[in-house]
Amino acid sequence: MNRQWQLNRRPVGEPTISDFKLVTGNVPARVAENDVLVRNRLLSLDPYMRWRMDDAKSYAPAVGLGEVMVGATISEVLQSQTPEFKVGDIVAAQGGWQDYAVVNRKAVRKLDVDQIAPEAYLGVLGSPGFTAYAGLMKIGNPRPGETVVVGAATGPVGSMVGQLARRTGARAVAIAGGAEKCGIATSEFGFSAAIDHRAPDFAAQLAKACPDGIDVYFENIGGEVLEAVIPLLNDFARIPVCGVISQYSGLASGENETSLNRFMRDILVKRLLVRGFIVTDFADIREEFDQTIAPLVASGEIRRLEDVVEGLEQAPHAFLGLLRGKNRGKLIVRIDDD
Amino acid sequence: MNRQWQLNRRPVGEPTISDFKLVTGNVPARVAENDVLVRNRLLSLDPYMRWRMDDAKSYAPAVGLGEVMVGATISEVLQSQTPEFKVGDIVAAQGGWQDYAVVNRKAVRKLDVDQIAPEAYLGVLGSPGFTAYAGLMKIGNPRPGETVVVGAATGPVGSMVGQLARRTGARAVAIAGGAEKCGIATSEFGFSAAIDHRAPDFAAQLAKACPDGIDVYFENIGGEVLEAVIPLLNDFARIPVCGVISQYSGLASGENETSLNRFMRDILVKRLLVRGFIVTDFADIREEFDQTIAPLVASGEIRRLEDVVEGLEQAPHAFLGLLRGKNRGKLIVRIDDD
Repeated sequence: MNRQWQLNRRPVGEPTISDFKLVTGNVPARVAENDVLVRNRLLSLDPYMRWRMDDAKSYAPAVGLGEVMVGATISEVLQSQTPEFKVGDIVAAQGGWQDYAVVNRKAVRKLDVDQIAPEAYLGVLGSPGFTAYAGLMKIGNPRPGETVVVGAATGPVGSMVGQLARRTGARAVAIAGGAEKCGIATSEFGFSAAIDHRAPDFAAQLAKACPDGIDVYFENIGGEVLEAVIPLLNDFARIPVCGVISQYSGLASGENETSLNRFMRDILVKRLLVRGFIVTDFADIREEFDQTIAPLVASGEIRRLEDVVEGLEQAPHAFLGLLRGKNRGKLIVRIDDD
Repeated sequence: MNRQWQLNRRPVGEPTISDFKLVTGNVPARVAENDVLVRNRLLSLDPYMRWRMDDAKSYAPAVGLGEVMVGATISEVLQSQTPEFKVGDIVAAQGGWQDYAVVNRKAVRKLDVDQIAPEAYLGVLGSPGFTAYAGLMKIGNPRPGETVVVGAATGPVGSMVGQLARRTGARAVAIAGGAEKCGIATSEFGFSAAIDHRAPDFAAQLAKACPDGIDVYFENIGGEVLEAVIPLLNDFARIPVCGVISQYSGLASGENETSLNRFMRDILVKRLLVRGFIVTDFADIREEFDQTIAPLVASGEIRRLEDVVEGLEQAPHAFLGLLRGKNRGKLIVRIDDD
């Protein structure tokens, strides 16, 4: 028999046990070509699953009511209709919250479990580890001596971010919930400091732990932790956003719906790139600009609109109008001979 | 005599005329080596100047009380103590709100005013134009058929963004204040549509003008315009942030200080890079990850922490704990033989 946890009800806010339903059915008897039947041995539980319980637009479809909860598994092949996998192989699959699953060969990956514990493929070598690696190395891009901050620091993403940051020569600062996790962060994963986000003076402690500011904030929490991080960010800091766990349970209920939290969720779901800039940051392409645009201005292909005010004495008045949007086009003061 | 507009008082909120003071003094008589004395002919007025009137940390120092207001000028060389410039040259300088200025040769650029009107060097060929070019082409990176939205669209930055976007084959949508400016945006600068941000149904009009969503939002306004843009952003949209003009006058007074507005200001001032990502976006480096990290996991150099729960029937309970941060390390369910 196949035991299966189904979504019973869509939670509002924090889910409860009765949002799930344990249903027992038959083990799939027939395996189609290119599919394998697997017995799930290890099931990964991850925060993103809360999000899938909502019927909300996201980067992945919601779990339907009465459908099995989704999840990554380490599984054993029981039947195979594809030459790549044989009975007894240990594989990574999206087997879901159940004993047995039929999965397509393309969604299954054979694992080397001689050198590496199977559990590792759900953590440091699974999606959490890869999330940490891709986000930190390809977006955060920490440099030696920089400060990297990450929350949920003893979790599989955060602990990997800390270890990778340290390996690049950066200083890693952990945010975690409670003294025990903070201890694990420093003793087990090599964080230089660990701050308890439940402490009443959390923001002050974080500032003290980051005397040179923050160069990379690996965002997986959102909410109040983000608010404490923002004032500490250095110029040109990078913020890979892989999750906003503090918001997941509040999405459907509308809790915590500040404009910033909504924006951070959009940054994640839509994979937005937001980057501030000052024109002087681009000095290296000034020549490219002049050479490209000046001929187009001379020929009239690039149009200009100018609002020229006569006389230096008019400058403040004209400037106040500019702040109210009263000018049309580029506001310029022609300085008369006095 | 040299007429000079000085900062008389730091404004709180919107500035008034009496925040400025017109002072008459002597023309600088002595010009040191490597400096030039210029007569300012055209003075640029730009929104960033409001920010410099505050005594707030920013990317540039504040104007001191009793100091001349800063500003870009087109100026004529009257005296030169450097061979690169001769009397009568027309140059771009940071001459400030005054008749005469002494400036270092490194801060002066000789202009070709035969082919191009001097006014253009304060607009499309000056900092506003270069801001538009660098932000749009190097951060926004519009592709043919995409939708680019920009505010203050008849201003020197916005009008350049629109023209450059159209030249890349993208569709440009203007946001401007009032019917007249909207008309200029479409007739003069080639925007496909122009929306009046003062209209009561502004957000609905913007949505209608962007039926395929927004791929690049060139941010120079902030506040309510940003709020209307956010829901229309497409996956992988880019947001170069070069200004938040709606916020400038509110900085010192604390008006409009939502957490989102504060964050956008930090994104600008600190030139932050914010980018959301989902692990599947990085499929092309999965192999790099496996090859780099698997040996480190096998050797124990990368540490793991796992919280293994026994039995599939425990999955929902364990998952609820995860959402409350009760697990230590990667949460895994070991699925027993039933």
